[in-house]
Amino acid sequence: MIHVVVMAGGIGSRFWPMSVPEYPKQFIDVLGLGRSLLQMTVDRLLPLCPIGNMWIVTSERYVDIVCEQLPGMPEGNILAEPEARNTAPCIAYASRKIAKLDPEAKIVVTPSDALVLNTTEYLTVLKEAIDFVAHNDAIVTVGIKPSRPETGYGYIAACGQRTMGAVERVAAFKEKPDLETAKGYLESGSYYWNAGIFVWKVTTIERSLRRYVPQIAEIMDQIAPSLHTLDEQATLRRLFPLCDKISIDYAVMERADNIYTIAADLGWSDLGTWGALLQNATRDSSGNAVIGTNINLHNCEDCVVHISDMDRVIVEGLNNYIVASKGGRLLVCRLSEEQHIKEFSL
Amino acid sequence: MIHVVVMAGGIGSRFWPMSVPEYPKQFIDVLGLGRSLLQMTVDRLLPLCPIGNMWIVTSERYVDIVCEQLPGMPEGNILAEPEARNTAPCIAYASRKIAKLDPEAKIVVTPSDALVLNTTEYLTVLKEAIDFVAHNDAIVTVGIKPSRPETGYGYIAACGQRTMGAVERVAAFKEKPDLETAKGYLESGSYYWNAGIFVWKVTTIERSLRRYVPQIAEIMDQIAPSLHTLDEQATLRRLFPLCDKISIDYAVMERADNIYTIAADLGWSDLGTWGALLQNATRDSSGNAVIGTNINLHNCEDCVVHISDMDRVIVEGLNNYIVASKGGRLLVCRLSEEQHIKEFSL
Repeated sequence: MIHVVVMAGGIGSRFWPMSVPEYPKQFIDVLGLGRSLLQMTVDRLLPLCPIGNMWIVTSERYVDIVCEQLPGMPEGNILAEPEARNTAPCIAYASRKIAKLDPEAKIVVTPSDALVLNTTEYLTVLKEAIDFVAHNDAIVTVGIKPSRPETGYGYIAACGQRTMGAVERVAAFKEKPDLETAKGYLESGSYYWNAGIFVWKVTTIERSLRRYVPQIAEIMDQIAPSLHTLDEQATLRRLFPLCDKISIDYAVMERADNIYTIAADLGWSDLGTWGALLQNATRDSSGNAVIGTNINLHNCEDCVVHISDMDRVIVEGLNNYIVASKGGRLLVCRLSEEQHIKEFSL
Repeated sequence: MIHVVVMAGGIGSRFWPMSVPEYPKQFIDVLGLGRSLLQMTVDRLLPLCPIGNMWIVTSERYVDIVCEQLPGMPEGNILAEPEARNTAPCIAYASRKIAKLDPEAKIVVTPSDALVLNTTEYLTVLKEAIDFVAHNDAIVTVGIKPSRPETGYGYIAACGQRTMGAVERVAAFKEKPDLETAKGYLESGSYYWNAGIFVWKVTTIERSLRRYVPQIAEIMDQIAPSLHTLDEQATLRRLFPLCDKISIDYAVMERADNIYTIAADLGWSDLGTWGALLQNATRDSSGNAVIGTNINLHNCEDCVVHISDMDRVIVEGLNNYIVASKGGRLLVCRLSEEQHIKEFSL
């Protein structure tokens, strides 16, 4: 069967004060579309498998938010990390839990806070990836065909040979490039943005984890007997924090040799910056993205205004600014300075 | 005896959202000094007369705020206008009420929302004015020696001859001038800012009102029997709204010929604009006036930030802006555009 693992444990610190550690970005309707990013992620994956086959991995402190936002989700499908240990332990835990129910599972792993506009294409690509991993001991990572020389994303370097259908072998993963390098990537046509969306059989990822991060696999061996029992959370609290803190990219993707990609044009954005949010939101004729009600802009251009709990907002004379407010916190900041918000808000 | 009438009925519409019709400017600690403008006005006049001789004229809807802000004030000294009819009816009502108690009263009339820094000089000037009106059938209006060619204030043109001590006869009142004219006023040395502070005997103002605005005087005749009785407010509600809506300047000051002025350097500002507020507040080394707590500015210059009810505020990269928030309302606006705030906030 197909399973989906949605990773929803991030704290979204770059989006203060819209996103705060008590209620981070993935739970917020950042684009003003009426659904949180997590809800939109689940919505777009529902054609792939029933909600009982979806697993949300999040922090213990966000479980209530997930329950509230996904009322159809069985509570047992919400995996509550006692502590954030990056993505490798997160995926190891979800995989082991699924494996115990369904040793033949094919799994899609996805972040919870990205935007996908071309949902049909997205499902097509995922189905193709699932079909491929069903017949091969392979890991497929979805590649996004770049539309600009973006320096804010990591890249997937494909080999340029098609293996089966649209599937290409991955030559390497590349860190965020400088602008020159990014332009080269764009021109070459075989570099794709790394969206952090992975497809594999549970047996494949389990074997990879045991090979590349045995420390984590061994802790999962100890946790395994408690999974799907009343003892699970207590065991997890005791053992999960012992896992090495390591990303799945570093633990597996950059080291395994059975990595493939399917590149597609998904209208994807990681919404990782206020600038990306501005680019992807509905904008007025002056280029402003206004998310919230009772907000009036005068003489403003290319601003992103995200205010959810004010009765009346008037913003005048700003060009390329962020104006955000929530829960008694207010930010006014140039978009060009958004990388400093984290330090400002400490 | 000396009495003080503080006019506190304004709605402070230029200071949205710090000042809103439900809680306007005079009741706000606009400079972050720990006292509202009304409280500071009363504080600085207390050496002149006991609080029982002070009369606050305000709107019915602000009576509770006045009671709360001036706990020592007898409730009977709060005069509640059922409707705003400008300053002539306001002063006529207060005068009639005082006259009934003390027909020999000398009265100081003052706005409630101006700033006076040189309190000692202020009291000296008022005492001199009181002494003058005690012995003359005269109206004294306090003149502020101009320190700059201000185009935002009305001016008092003095005759240039001293009548007694510092008292000069007033030749005319001048509307807000253009810059050229204001420069001429400044050079001449006999033009003063009109602070709207008046001193007179109750008999003098009563006679002037009867002569220049008999319609208002006649309504006061009808109201008079009810004053200081349980029937006062009901009578006022019935009759006060019938008064012509006219300012004391237009009704009396510009028409009477017994007008005098004493000019002084009082460190006075009407605090009539956000710009004036910025000029008169404590400013940081970058020229920002920050009123409120938990507010951090980065790369900001000459901004006025007035936020009373946020837990955390970060403002970055603004030069010459107003940032104000209160009661679920937020304003970000260039100081140069502050004259439009009123229309923006409609």
